[in-house]
Amino acid sequence: MPERTPERIARIREVLSRRQPDLTVLLENVHKPHNLSAILRTCDAVGVLRAHAVNPTGGVPTFNETSGGSHKWVDLEVHPDIRSAIAHLKGQGFQVLAAHLSEGAVDYREADYTRPTAVLLGAEKWGVSEEAAALSDLHIKIPMMGMVQSLNVSVAAAVILFEAQRQRLRAGMYERPRLDPEAYQRLLEDWLKR
Amino acid sequence: MPERTPERIARIREVLSRRQPDLTVLLENVHKPHNLSAILRTCDAVGVLRAHAVNPTGGVPTFNETSGGSHKWVDLEVHPDIRSAIAHLKGQGFQVLAAHLSEGAVDYREADYTRPTAVLLGAEKWGVSEEAAALSDLHIKIPMMGMVQSLNVSVAAAVILFEAQRQRLRAGMYERPRLDPEAYQRLLEDWLKR
Ligand SMILES: C[S@@+](CC[C@H](N)C(=O)[O-])C[C@H]1O[C@@H](n2cnc3c(N)ncnc32)[C@H](O)[C@@H]1O
Ligand SMILES: C[S@@+](CC[C@H](N)C(=O)[O-])C[C@H]1O[C@@H](n2cnc3c(N)ncnc32)[C@H](O)[C@@H]1O
Repeated sequence: MPERTPERIARIREVLSRRQPDLTVLLENVHKPHNLSAILRTCDAVGVLRAHAVNPTGGVPTFNETSGGSHKWVDLEVHPDIRSAIAHLKGQGFQVLAAHLSEGAVDYREADYTRPTAVLLGAEKWGVSEEAAALSDLHIKIPMMGMVQSLNVSVAAAVILFEAQRQRLRAGMYERPRLDPEAYQRLLEDWLKR
Repeated sequence: MPERTPERIARIREVLSRRQPDLTVLLENVHKPHNLSAILRTCDAVGVLRAHAVNPTGGVPTFNETSGGSHKWVDLEVHPDIRSAIAHLKGQGFQVLAAHLSEGAVDYREADYTRPTAVLLGAEKWGVSEEAAALSDLHIKIPMMGMVQSLNVSVAAAVILFEAQRQRLRAGMYERPRLDPEAYQRLLEDWLKR
């Protein structure tokens, strides 16, 4: 069990007071451990409390050192299929924005990330499934100026999540705790043991 | 040799007319092939013409499928050491912005990427070297709200390069060719053979 030094308690309090319970990602069949790890690391950096996935790393729950230890600080909730994952998030009031280069996709900078938001990302090879695309509220795209059609999935996740961070910084959403006092206290106790 | 269809010529012309000869990255000892590949793929997407590196992938020039074929469209110039790489870029009028979490680093969104700019990125384990940090014009940092201290290097590169893209889009820098007519014509001939 790690030590309860005042510094460690203060650090955890600081990070918990910036966690955004209403910002998350939903990863659909993201298979490569280094991509999953890099995404969770980015999630930690923008304050995602809990990430969601369907069939991550092909069902094998393996992480690698790319995470910089962030899987310790961002919980990953695994859902049985994409339909129930999206239903779960919508049931909690999240808008689901599919990062998906479809005809109707809008520039990712036009979306409003200060609302409760889940960013859906697709598999390295196949992208977002048709089912998931149909169930999403909006398709967003990162403008591509080059010869290659798409970005690496962990790169796409980061570009979108840091736009969300930018909007939430401007809206003052990192300035006071976003967790309710009870959840905050429960997480504090839990994190001190990690 | 690939075919010279009208579609292919038009596509290459379109991409070349958006290439930004005055935006680049300098990679210092970025060792992992999947990171190097993801970075070159992002470079292609924001219009980097030619990337720079010192000791990429530990000297072994290997790429993997993460690149999505982008190493074909972004040249990689390898320099013998970081001092000469920075001197080369400064000699061409580039400001060198080190992505480096130092005391004096400013928020990456405050830098002006419409100026000729090279973004320096450090090694996965050790970051930007002291020598490179000292030779840079400015240190920039991506704000971290979580427990983990740094991002994956290909993620950091993307977050910064898409801020550069955002500024350059707004400044109209993708609207007309930035290459001089001679370089444009030379590259067109060259790319048609790739
Ligand atoms: C490598 S891409 C998948 C490419 C796949 N061939 C396709 O056509 O969708 C993996 C995931 O990264 C995200 N992504 C990559 N580039 C993107 C872009 N320019 N805009 C939005 N999302 C992108 C999407 O979520 C995509 O499903
Ligand atoms: C994994 S980090 C290196 C971490 C290393 N332990 C250090 O202290 O610098 C690899 C590179 O990604 C870039 N990077 C990662 N996170 C960053 C951030 N928050 N701001 C700016 N650059 C970052 C830097 O160029 C860094 O050298």
